[in-house]
Amino acid sequence: MTATLTSTTEAAYFTHLKCKECGAEYEPQAIHVCEYCFGPLEVKYDLNRLATEVSRSSIEAGPQSIWRYRPFLPVTSANPIDVGTGMTPLVKAQRLARRLGLKHLYIKNDAVNMPTLSFKDRVVSVALTRARELGFTTVSCASTGNLANSTAAIAAHAGLDCCVFIPADLEAGKVLGTLIYGPTVMAVEGNYDQVNRLCSEVANTHGWGFVNINLRPYYSEGSKTLGYEVVEQLGWQLPDHIVAPLASGSLFTKIYKGFREFVEVGLVADKPVRCSGAQAVGCSPIAQAYAEGRDFVAPVKPNTIAKSIAIGNPADGVYALDIARKTNGAIAAATDEEIVAGIKLLAETEGIFTETAGGTTIAVLKKLVEAGTIDPEEVTVVYITGNGLKTQEAVQNDIGQPLTIEPKLASFERALERSRTLERLDWQPVLV
Amino acid sequence: MTATLTSTTEAAYFTHLKCKECGAEYEPQAIHVCEYCFGPLEVKYDLNRLATEVSRSSIEAGPQSIWRYRPFLPVTSANPIDVGTGMTPLVKAQRLARRLGLKHLYIKNDAVNMPTLSFKDRVVSVALTRARELGFTTVSCASTGNLANSTAAIAAHAGLDCCVFIPADLEAGKVLGTLIYGPTVMAVEGNYDQVNRLCSEVANTHGWGFVNINLRPYYSEGSKTLGYEVVEQLGWQLPDHIVAPLASGSLFTKIYKGFREFVEVGLVADKPVRCSGAQAVGCSPIAQAYAEGRDFVAPVKPNTIAKSIAIGNPADGVYALDIARKTNGAIAAATDEEIVAGIKLLAETEGIFTETAGGTTIAVLKKLVEAGTIDPEEVTVVYITGNGLKTQEAVQNDIGQPLTIEPKLASFERALERSRTLERLDWQPVLV
Repeated sequence: MTATLTSTTEAAYFTHLKCKECGAEYEPQAIHVCEYCFGPLEVKYDLNRLATEVSRSSIEAGPQSIWRYRPFLPVTSANPIDVGTGMTPLVKAQRLARRLGLKHLYIKNDAVNMPTLSFKDRVVSVALTRARELGFTTVSCASTGNLANSTAAIAAHAGLDCCVFIPADLEAGKVLGTLIYGPTVMAVEGNYDQVNRLCSEVANTHGWGFVNINLRPYYSEGSKTLGYEVVEQLGWQLPDHIVAPLASGSLFTKIYKGFREFVEVGLVADKPVRCSGAQAVGCSPIAQAYAEGRDFVAPVKPNTIAKSIAIGNPADGVYALDIARKTNGAIAAATDEEIVAGIKLLAETEGIFTETAGGTTIAVLKKLVEAGTIDPEEVTVVYITGNGLKTQEAVQNDIGQPLTIEPKLASFERALERSRTLERLDWQPVLV
Repeated sequence: MTATLTSTTEAAYFTHLKCKECGAEYEPQAIHVCEYCFGPLEVKYDLNRLATEVSRSSIEAGPQSIWRYRPFLPVTSANPIDVGTGMTPLVKAQRLARRLGLKHLYIKNDAVNMPTLSFKDRVVSVALTRARELGFTTVSCASTGNLANSTAAIAAHAGLDCCVFIPADLEAGKVLGTLIYGPTVMAVEGNYDQVNRLCSEVANTHGWGFVNINLRPYYSEGSKTLGYEVVEQLGWQLPDHIVAPLASGSLFTKIYKGFREFVEVGLVADKPVRCSGAQAVGCSPIAQAYAEGRDFVAPVKPNTIAKSIAIGNPADGVYALDIARKTNGAIAAATDEEIVAGIKLLAETEGIFTETAGGTTIAVLKKLVEAGTIDPEEVTVVYITGNGLKTQEAVQNDIGQPLTIEPKLASFERALERSRTLERLDWQPVLV
């Protein structure tokens, strides 16, 4: 079926779509590319009305989900699809901070986001609400895994038909964590960029709502809530520095947009926020452009364990690059080995088990601290965007094995003695 | 090291431990069994002071975690271990309700609890806070998996040494989801009841804080928050009927205790709440006692895919039995096949992926509706206590496979046609 325009209600504060390149304006339909210059389209809001009609207390009185920020999101429904997404914990990471030599470190933990344990639940909640408003009955996506989980789950909750596209070599947990909700799953023999190109063709021929293609302007706005929530959870203050993973670059630009909107409508006092980004060395087109001082992003062929952020041709790469530079942030990359070490470091110091994307972000945080890029005094927020149970393959050979014992005290005592000996050997200083 | 008594501060409302059988009273130390009659000890509070000093608004002004209910929890610390545990979503399950023929069904979703995706994060947050107050530096547990995940993670966050005990045949996700935090893991060749007996011996000889043995009276109080949160999230009302899984029976009795305490201190209006319990047929000692009208629970040897609730000798079984009977609830059991169907039903209707314990609860919910035990008009709350990503083995043969395609439109079209044909065949009515 084809999309039809639903008129906005009085409650909605978004007004139109606007091309980020040439400024052409469009009705808020299911389109994502400018007809004139092929630039990406972005949602615009009536910020004056927002400044007058939305307050800290009106937000605080809202639901414990992303929908407390509904006036800042591009939907008209009085009842958006609310499965409890968002308002994930902001954890003061004291042990990790001490280990790294920082004083004010926070983890924004979307590894426990509802329902599918990644930040994608935010963007999909918005996209599927808008898809319903525009009359779509089948929803779809091109995904590196987390997005497929989220689209399938939230479509199930909302009773929408669903067909998702993934690269055929994804981690087992991400495939199973999609199939369980009963969608059609297409495993494409190719990398994400090939999946994405195929999906653009299907979007043009089948009239489905692809959350990250023809619904992308609405979808991507959901990531702004990761900015809003941090501001609210810090007691209505901006952080000094953020570190977030870069895949398409969309998340990164939208966190920044969220901060700026809250400043513009007077919800938070303005101050500089440094925005730093993390990539895997095996797929680091934005980090390479940053390092080389380029203002264009050259596509690469991904080869990394961090599959969820392995986008070789990132749609919003240049915008992310621009934000990192103008906020005095940095973009750096971590090797697969450093990514695994990052996952373990976060687990052992804070009790948070993240997937490879989170390991990348922690590894880059560590690099930026060691390089002196992050000041120990800065209030630094690190975005953990997905859960480690979905990428168990990445760590299973690096975490050891349980000690197998008989159900007898003597057997336990022997194993304990053995483990303590091993630990002592581990820690023995090298004799020279 | 040995436990030492820390005196309670003025801020604490808990006063002592009391034997549930003979009523003997004890100082709030690391003990769990009555010296006189071997009955279990339970924490007592100054309910009069609570009624005077705690209000709905004082709770609502608290943190977004279980610690908003701190006056009702057995800790003295001004800064308990708060990793954002609790305040998980209560989801109105409209599609599942329609499928089952209910009108007011809610899912309390601890599959997204912070940090380790099960309700155990609640009890462990309380137990480790109390462990620290009592001077323990090494914490431990006997676990069917989720508890080991939680103890290892929260101990890591708090900087406590940790050694956990699990049955050697646990699901891979639960083992890896413990090892990642860096504790010592003892895999015991035996079932949970054998693990538990071994741990009782170790607790007596090593002076460690076992969250579910010598710290059990404090630990188990954490489950009351699953009662408190539902009351608050329903707009300060009691539900009509709850369905929860039964392993040791502790969770079930503490949800009930939570409801009763809120009534006793005047936070919620009293009315009857029917409490129903779910077990797996392969480990159903409490359901068997219920069915046979017995007031004792005969131990069984577990044999079910629902390993997280496979406790053959449940410590609080008789108390759970008593509550189900006196509240006009019921206790029923589901086969392994029904458990898998329950997991899929919840995923396909609500987009929530739960583990085998949750599948058991959904399967039993369905049975109780079909038997007429649950009235369609009742406000019914189902407790989903853990995440499906930890027990992928249970469903991986029952959810089909992706359709593998080349990155070409024609390949996609052929696969889509094939899948639609299969679907039509699936739905074809049998010709007679």
